[in-house]
Amino acid sequence: MARSGRRGGRGGMSARAGNKIEQLPWSQTHLPYTPLKVVTEEQLEQIHRTSMRVLSEAGIRVMSETVMDLFERAGAIVDRDEMTIRIDESIVAQALETVPQSFDMVARNPEKRITMGGSAMNFGLVAGPPNTHDMINGRRPGNHEDYCNFIRLAHHFNAVNIIGNQVVAPMELPANTRHLDTYLANLTLSDLTFHCTAIGRGRALDGINMMAISRGISIEEMREVPGVVTVISVNSPRLLDEAMTDGLMAMAEHGQPVSITPFTLMGAMTPVTLPAAMAQQNAEALFGVVLTQLVNPGTPVLYGAFTSNVDMRSGAPAFGTPENTKANIIAGQLARRYRVPYRTSNANASNCVDLQAAYETMMSTWGATMGGANLIYHAAGWLEGGLTASMEKFILDVEIIQNMKEFMKPISFGEDELGLEAIKSVPTGGHFFGAAHTMERYETAFYRPLLSDWTNYESWEAAGAKDALTRATELWQQALREYEEPALDPGVAEALDAYVIRRREEIGAGEP
Amino acid sequence: MARSGRRGGRGGMSARAGNKIEQLPWSQTHLPYTPLKVVTEEQLEQIHRTSMRVLSEAGIRVMSETVMDLFERAGAIVDRDEMTIRIDESIVAQALETVPQSFDMVARNPEKRITMGGSAMNFGLVAGPPNTHDMINGRRPGNHEDYCNFIRLAHHFNAVNIIGNQVVAPMELPANTRHLDTYLANLTLSDLTFHCTAIGRGRALDGINMMAISRGISIEEMREVPGVVTVISVNSPRLLDEAMTDGLMAMAEHGQPVSITPFTLMGAMTPVTLPAAMAQQNAEALFGVVLTQLVNPGTPVLYGAFTSNVDMRSGAPAFGTPENTKANIIAGQLARRYRVPYRTSNANASNCVDLQAAYETMMSTWGATMGGANLIYHAAGWLEGGLTASMEKFILDVEIIQNMKEFMKPISFGEDELGLEAIKSVPTGGHFFGAAHTMERYETAFYRPLLSDWTNYESWEAAGAKDALTRATELWQQALREYEEPALDPGVAEALDAYVIRRREEIGAGEP
Repeated sequence: MARSGRRGGRGGMSARAGNKIEQLPWSQTHLPYTPLKVVTEEQLEQIHRTSMRVLSEAGIRVMSETVMDLFERAGAIVDRDEMTIRIDESIVAQALETVPQSFDMVARNPEKRITMGGSAMNFGLVAGPPNTHDMINGRRPGNHEDYCNFIRLAHHFNAVNIIGNQVVAPMELPANTRHLDTYLANLTLSDLTFHCTAIGRGRALDGINMMAISRGISIEEMREVPGVVTVISVNSPRLLDEAMTDGLMAMAEHGQPVSITPFTLMGAMTPVTLPAAMAQQNAEALFGVVLTQLVNPGTPVLYGAFTSNVDMRSGAPAFGTPENTKANIIAGQLARRYRVPYRTSNANASNCVDLQAAYETMMSTWGATMGGANLIYHAAGWLEGGLTASMEKFILDVEIIQNMKEFMKPISFGEDELGLEAIKSVPTGGHFFGAAHTMERYETAFYRPLLSDWTNYESWEAAGAKDALTRATELWQQALREYEEPALDPGVAEALDAYVIRRREEIGAGEP
Repeated sequence: MARSGRRGGRGGMSARAGNKIEQLPWSQTHLPYTPLKVVTEEQLEQIHRTSMRVLSEAGIRVMSETVMDLFERAGAIVDRDEMTIRIDESIVAQALETVPQSFDMVARNPEKRITMGGSAMNFGLVAGPPNTHDMINGRRPGNHEDYCNFIRLAHHFNAVNIIGNQVVAPMELPANTRHLDTYLANLTLSDLTFHCTAIGRGRALDGINMMAISRGISIEEMREVPGVVTVISVNSPRLLDEAMTDGLMAMAEHGQPVSITPFTLMGAMTPVTLPAAMAQQNAEALFGVVLTQLVNPGTPVLYGAFTSNVDMRSGAPAFGTPENTKANIIAGQLARRYRVPYRTSNANASNCVDLQAAYETMMSTWGATMGGANLIYHAAGWLEGGLTASMEKFILDVEIIQNMKEFMKPISFGEDELGLEAIKSVPTGGHFFGAAHTMERYETAFYRPLLSDWTNYESWEAAGAKDALTRATELWQQALREYEEPALDPGVAEALDAYVIRRREEIGAGEP
């Protein structure tokens, strides 16, 4: 410790050869503070009222006869020619009555059970990029090996609570069956819950079935505590396509949670003003929430938000902006108004893992966490506006997540912590390094960072002057070396393999 | 705009040749949200009560007979042998009655008047590093040319509201008169208020006199609206040295504001527990606040905070940590309890301008801004734990400050902004790029970043694949080219020169 015996710091990994990566233990983080508010209660009601008029006057277009039937039976005004559904507030209110305020999810490891709702906070692996990047191998189209490595990293780092939709697309595998390969990787290389691809019923059902097999339970039993989740994106403005609604219905029928997430970039998919964007997002999200309850009352559902802005000079999407940060907080206010668990993201728009990637991610992360999000999707590895999954960004994000988790850790306030005697025990101008009060606590007193290097300049320079990006490159490689595959019952492994083989044959050249 | 005419984005400065740097206009930012709370009201009282016992039972050591006399007259228990002053809560309470809840400051440009107090928020240039660094010239000891360039940058960018104590030390100039050179640079190269070095009375008085000359008023008249501020650091634990108290008294006698800032790194200068650190910081800060009011009741004063932690493995200071972030917020709760304007910082511990510098600065910035700080000191340019002023970090910080200022910008909530008609005017699955509602607002709808590049990957690569650090290097050079020295009345310039020449002779080889 410190002055009684400096260890030469930790300037780079070389000084720690043989040391395993330190990280926070697995835990369910809770927001211990009052969530931030960006708009007043009256402004929130203005957004609500506007969104209700969007639903009753403009409506949502849905490319599905089944959905139109469901809404018609619920009392909606359905325009079959235009495939547009208009609902009034009473239909929304009735659906909200059956939405669970909170639900749990678990995969095959009961210790990694997570809660969606209340003050619980969970972070997800980035989902959906076609490309992957790291500083060793460069930028390349997604492939199965990279996919597996990301799942290993997500399993290794406790900061990641849930696997999102296809961290990178394994482009070399057939498009109609690659979901089977990714589910199998999720279930064998990790013990986390994951996102089912819900483009069509088949992909959703395969995820549900395989998760049930891995837990050794039936899909009926999995209604009790769901094991998979899906995200239904609204094609904003006001459009739900058929494949998405089919996936939504498959999940809801089986009691598995759905996040309804309008993709609402201000100036492109919504009006350019934030109140209007929030009103449109709210209308679209609540419409999806209603649909889940019409399919199966009591279906766990998340109020999803993805409102940011575009660069009005180029039309390119921007994330981690001040407007995105406000939207993350307002969406939390709305979700709490309706008592629906809340999902958002903490994206950035940088093309490489640089200062911009860090500060934009921090902006959106603060909006998401202090906005009261229960699920922060895309939280680890998102780069290039979501077009690339990055290994170094993953490490940066784990550090950011760990910092936020520690910021959320409640402070003990006993007499010992208030420390009057400790203060009095050290003379003026002295120091507390060797004090008994310090010695008893110093090993666990403060957060120990994953990526930050706190050595002084001279030690840092002597250790190679490695910047955080260089250290991140070392850390993901070290993590892959230290990764241990979670043990899986051989019978379960066989059953999963058999399922995949059978389904691959069934699907053939068709769609799942 | 966007799809009707892409301009190829702004991937790097080359694409903008001839374009001046865009930035936010000068403005007084206010926190429009409820400040964050990390501790409950009861916990806040526990910190308060503990700090009162520190003051009455342990006391503060002060190396000044004058200060001991002042406190003795106020009813304190003064131990002359130990030079220790013990005060009870009634003395603190009485002093707090005369502390202004808010005060204004201004230099020679009345449009750049700033408020310290209430919800007002101001950002300061980094203060005190012995070294400077940029990516063109590398790391070097501070010098007068670099000093002047930082003042030019601070003047150029509206994000910076106030100049801190010696942004870099001009090491080549004589130590006993270099404060005159730096004040002269502040007053000729910028029109901002600044920090007087208060190591001894002479340096403080020179700053007060020169600011008064530059404003064309007497130092008596400058009591109305102060023009300079100083920071008095407590040598924690519980020690105030004589030079600092002399400077404090000189400022207070002339009605110029003082920030009392204990330097409290947990585990080194305070106990390792956060409640104890806050109690000790609170005792030390309030002691200094009392001193200002004993010298001159009504002296403007800031409650200063600088509580972070050390790396318990190396003893090195750490900033932008979760503990630092919590401390920034708790200190705000304390300052508001006492109705004293609040100063803190948003430091980081990185040795270079990298991911770590960005995310640590963001952590501490969120704690400082949402903690309700009125003055965020060291906000632009801080690197290496305060040992280096960095040009690229300055640009990064201006971007961070601008992001926070935009996040603080209130949202308009009229019918037009709620945009029901705009939403209804675009068909499902369409887009809002060309909508009238968009066209009327798109130029000012969103924050336009200084440093962020939102072009897509291909455009970014084609423009040289410049990361944010490279762009920052270009931006500070461009800013120095675009910088315009603010006009100064020739009579004032002459008077300032004459003052400096006279004082240089007076000081000679002695101390000012």
